[in-house]
Amino acid sequence: MLQQLPALVVLLAVLLMAGTAYAVGRARARYGIKAPATSGHPDFERAFRVQMNTLEACMMFLPLLWLATHFGLGGWAGLAGLVWVFGRVWYALAYLKEASKREGGFALSALALVAVLLLAAFGTLRALLGG
Amino acid sequence: MLQQLPALVVLLAVLLMAGTAYAVGRARARYGIKAPATSGHPDFERAFRVQMNTLEACMMFLPLLWLATHFGLGGWAGLAGLVWVFGRVWYALAYLKEASKREGGFALSALALVAVLLLAAFGTLRALLGG
Amino acid sequence: MLQQLPALVVLLAVLLMAGTAYAVGRARARYGIKAPATSGHPDFERAFRVQMNTLEACMMFLPLLWLATHFGLGGWAGLAGLVWVFGRVWYALAYLKEASKREGGFALSALALVAVLLLAAFGTLRALLGG
Repeated sequence: MLQQLPALVVLLAVLLMAGTAYAVGRARARYGIKAPATSGHPDFERAFRVQMNTLEACMMFLPLLWLATHFGLGGWAGLAGLVWVFGRVWYALAYLKEASKREGGFALSALALVAVLLLAAFGTLRALLGG
Repeated sequence: MLQQLPALVVLLAVLLMAGTAYAVGRARARYGIKAPATSGHPDFERAFRVQMNTLEACMMFLPLLWLATHFGLGGWAGLAGLVWVFGRVWYALAYLKEASKREGGFALSALALVAVLLLAAFGTLRALLGG
Repeated sequence: MLQQLPALVVLLAVLLMAGTAYAVGRARARYGIKAPATSGHPDFERAFRVQMNTLEACMMFLPLLWLATHFGLGGWAGLAGLVWVFGRVWYALAYLKEASKREGGFALSALALVAVLLLAAFGTLRALLGG
């Protein structure tokens, strides 16, 4: 079952992206900020930044999760991935309230990202060296 | 052959991203908006927003397509993916003309995204439960 | 060993994204541009644009690399991928200094992207046609 964790983490990451996109749409409506504008009210701008930061984070995290899983380290990568998702949700909810509150979730997800990076790098090097 | 549909959909999604990036470059040249600026003329701003929205959409869609395919549901996911691509192309072309026209393509691609999400979630849960 | 090149390229692409995110954070601190703002100083704005362009580029490149590798063309795709990474690093470093200097790295990485696109398209068509 641990081997299927990465798939669950991918699902959660996509739901997180959908959630941050939804928050932008809601802020767009609430503050009357018409597309394609991406500024006009601090609450909207924070929501927009949360969405973009989440996108950036997923773009680094998901390929590493895939690599680590490909090289047979999906159990560990999946566990680190759950921590990463938790950190990103914390980050998003805190940042939506106030920009200065985003540090904790950011740090936790960064740690989890480094863990998945190390797993992916270990798997890649082991394969490159024919281990 | 249906099993290879997801690969075709990935290719089309990348070509769509390339097309939206090209539209931004063309608008940049036409309206004399020098990088790194991302504002200055409504036509450019819409083109830029189309590119970013397409990127966000791909970042949610492609991992789900991959998951559903991984769990043996590539035929269905590929068919939903073709609908998704069609919706996104419609969205992009309509939005490039006028922001208010983007709803139809957005709704269609959102429906297709939900279909692929359900397939990916079904495959993941079935694997998690050892089915 | 050539077959493991794509994994190495994925790692390098993620490190490149991390590097461009770091450059944005550093510019944010240096010029006192508080999140969620994404403008306020030309150096910051270039760093931010480098990060976003890198993200866009990865979002097109990585799925194609994955496709080409999936269809047994990972050696060639990996070699083209190394050129792509080199082009993107060149692009990022040049653009951080001056927007007009970004052309060379952009052109090289675009060529490498087209190479991986052709490999991915060849692999996909061969599989679709049952070859």
